[in-house]
Amino acid sequence: MPTAPFSRTIDATFPPPVMEARRWIAGRSFPAERPLLNLSQAAPVERPPLALREEIARAALEDPQAHLYGPVLGLPELRAEIATQWSAAYGGAIAARDVCITSGCNEAFCAAISTIAAPGDAVMLPTPWYFNHKMWLDTAGIEAVPLPCGPDMVPDPETARALLSPAVKAIVLVTPNNPTGAEYPAGVLAAFLRLAQDAGITLVVDETYRDFHSAAGAPHGLFADPRWRENLVHLYSFSKVFRLTGHRVGAMVASPERLAQVEKFLDSMTICPAQLGQMAALHGLRTLKDWVAGERREVLARRAAVEEGFAALPGWKLLGCGAYFAYAEHPFPESSLALAEALVEEQSLLLLPGTMFTPEGAGGARQFRIAFANADVAGLGEMIRRLGAFTAARATASAAGH
Amino acid sequence: MPTAPFSRTIDATFPPPVMEARRWIAGRSFPAERPLLNLSQAAPVERPPLALREEIARAALEDPQAHLYGPVLGLPELRAEIATQWSAAYGGAIAARDVCITSGCNEAFCAAISTIAAPGDAVMLPTPWYFNHKMWLDTAGIEAVPLPCGPDMVPDPETARALLSPAVKAIVLVTPNNPTGAEYPAGVLAAFLRLAQDAGITLVVDETYRDFHSAAGAPHGLFADPRWRENLVHLYSFSKVFRLTGHRVGAMVASPERLAQVEKFLDSMTICPAQLGQMAALHGLRTLKDWVAGERREVLARRAAVEEGFAALPGWKLLGCGAYFAYAEHPFPESSLALAEALVEEQSLLLLPGTMFTPEGAGGARQFRIAFANADVAGLGEMIRRLGAFTAARATASAAGH
Repeated sequence: MPTAPFSRTIDATFPPPVMEARRWIAGRSFPAERPLLNLSQAAPVERPPLALREEIARAALEDPQAHLYGPVLGLPELRAEIATQWSAAYGGAIAARDVCITSGCNEAFCAAISTIAAPGDAVMLPTPWYFNHKMWLDTAGIEAVPLPCGPDMVPDPETARALLSPAVKAIVLVTPNNPTGAEYPAGVLAAFLRLAQDAGITLVVDETYRDFHSAAGAPHGLFADPRWRENLVHLYSFSKVFRLTGHRVGAMVASPERLAQVEKFLDSMTICPAQLGQMAALHGLRTLKDWVAGERREVLARRAAVEEGFAALPGWKLLGCGAYFAYAEHPFPESSLALAEALVEEQSLLLLPGTMFTPEGAGGARQFRIAFANADVAGLGEMIRRLGAFTAARATASAAGH
Repeated sequence: MPTAPFSRTIDATFPPPVMEARRWIAGRSFPAERPLLNLSQAAPVERPPLALREEIARAALEDPQAHLYGPVLGLPELRAEIATQWSAAYGGAIAARDVCITSGCNEAFCAAISTIAAPGDAVMLPTPWYFNHKMWLDTAGIEAVPLPCGPDMVPDPETARALLSPAVKAIVLVTPNNPTGAEYPAGVLAAFLRLAQDAGITLVVDETYRDFHSAAGAPHGLFADPRWRENLVHLYSFSKVFRLTGHRVGAMVASPERLAQVEKFLDSMTICPAQLGQMAALHGLRTLKDWVAGERREVLARRAAVEEGFAALPGWKLLGCGAYFAYAEHPFPESSLALAEALVEEQSLLLLPGTMFTPEGAGGARQFRIAFANADVAGLGEMIRRLGAFTAARATASAAGH
């Protein structure tokens, strides 16, 4: 009676980094004077504003649609609202039929990739990469082609062009970036779209953290290109902007022809997005513009606190900082993977090591991702204090010959 | 500027049948004396019971967890409750760590398959098959090996054995079946598990419609086999039993080792299931046993109405009937695909043609799936009346030489 083996593709996929990090803190108690500071997963810790919670409760009690299957591509009103708001924000013409709703932005990525690349094909990801993107490519049997970022954590279109091959069907950019926080300049994004157009491939731009961009206007002009539908896919998430992580609502903007292909994927996978989350997202888009502006100001203040803090932290170097994330280089000889566990043990501080975001040998062992937007300015001051204490303790131990 | 092409795998996947059927009725008006009777998608039309809606509203307002990411494999309390109830129901030992929660049962299927088969491998599906299973295999680059059912709509383990090859990594059974309604006998399921054990492959048993099974006790004894974890995966859905289709909550029971692989897939795809749906499912499992028993009695009464109705319907033959579905053979020379549109036009009756559930040439053109549980006994009487009128009109037209 032989046990059934696992598929080679899932076996080749690494385990979820966030769940691994959760295991480092599971069952552990932290001293009262130094409680756990968890800056691992990008997740708002506060609840959505009361108005959204009340809208969800109202819909659950009163709206029969809240509990029924909806259209595979999402609520028509939400698709239309996104089309209207995005057209204004990006200065382009986006119609409701260019928009679909997904069960979170990860599913939007997986669905988009399924329309672009088959098993055996390849997709280019700048490194450091978002680990779930790499995991999905492995699971789907698609090769990830690493595109190393420059020292400013921005990928270079000409480096990408040199790495193209017939197998590469797409380039995926995340801006503001996860994990580095880098905001890609509009000119760089435009050059990547031209590259995709020249090569007849797809540019996927994941703008999950767009609402916390430091620039006030449109972050790029890609939708102003009248031919954007031929080579561009845009991804978005409602998880961070309205604190709806537990509801799973994301979105994709792409050509109606691509969305007809996406519909096949989504129908087979989740049939439709959860209705209450969609209703909350719609209510948020319609009523919470001022509230979101306040959230953005707060996140930008946190970002400034991180930049100030690192400027005064001996030995550490801030490689990138923006939207939700900072990406920092540490001064120690050990790998960030070992140091991450030591930070939990010695400083009750949970950061994700850069090894989780990079292919082996690509610098991740020197780096940490800090999901700084999870903490307020005081909490970020405390983080810098703990990193300083951690660094000083190691310097002392090293000087004493340990 | 070449347009980026679509991947060969998504291109080879057929479009969602339910969305295609929705297009047949979209924008159409039906006569007041003969309103649309929609028996296409298996979806409860009523809302969940008030107690569940109130629990969802309460959690949305009061429970901070309702809006936050949860564990990838689902709420621990829900996993534990399923383990306890399933252990009792099936007479086997199922632990909480054998259970995970998914964003609906389709995602559970996709996740299970990803741990079993890689692109280029094959999976055996009895025909008629559940179209989303076939669609996902196509999307994932996995071959579907059709296993034709016998005239009783039950697959034969020895026929399956003869169709095995090294490429076949799993056999998928749906019982009670979608689309045929057939309840597979416990002995047949046991024989399929033995076959999987002999061959070192996985048996996937999808029991989405289990709560409406006509047998009062355990529908099979597979979990009583102490070695079930080596070759068995069980899938379940909360969509029908608690009328939670719009919330996307399903479950998988499998070995903890397999669930560690499943966790990779789910983390990359949806991160976690929607929290409110999980909370509703947990509340339902804990408090709605009597209510579910009443629902089952009602569905069984509807099933009896369908069986009686077809017994008196000239020319039609009921091939299978159980749980949510009936599968019927029509007496006309035309394909069920063409007849389905004629039924909408002439009788305001929406059924799905068997062509949506079968490979070409496998009998689907003679067949219809009827999601009878969507309608009450009076509605099912009306369905039989309309099928009778449709049949009589065609007989008259045919006799008149049209």
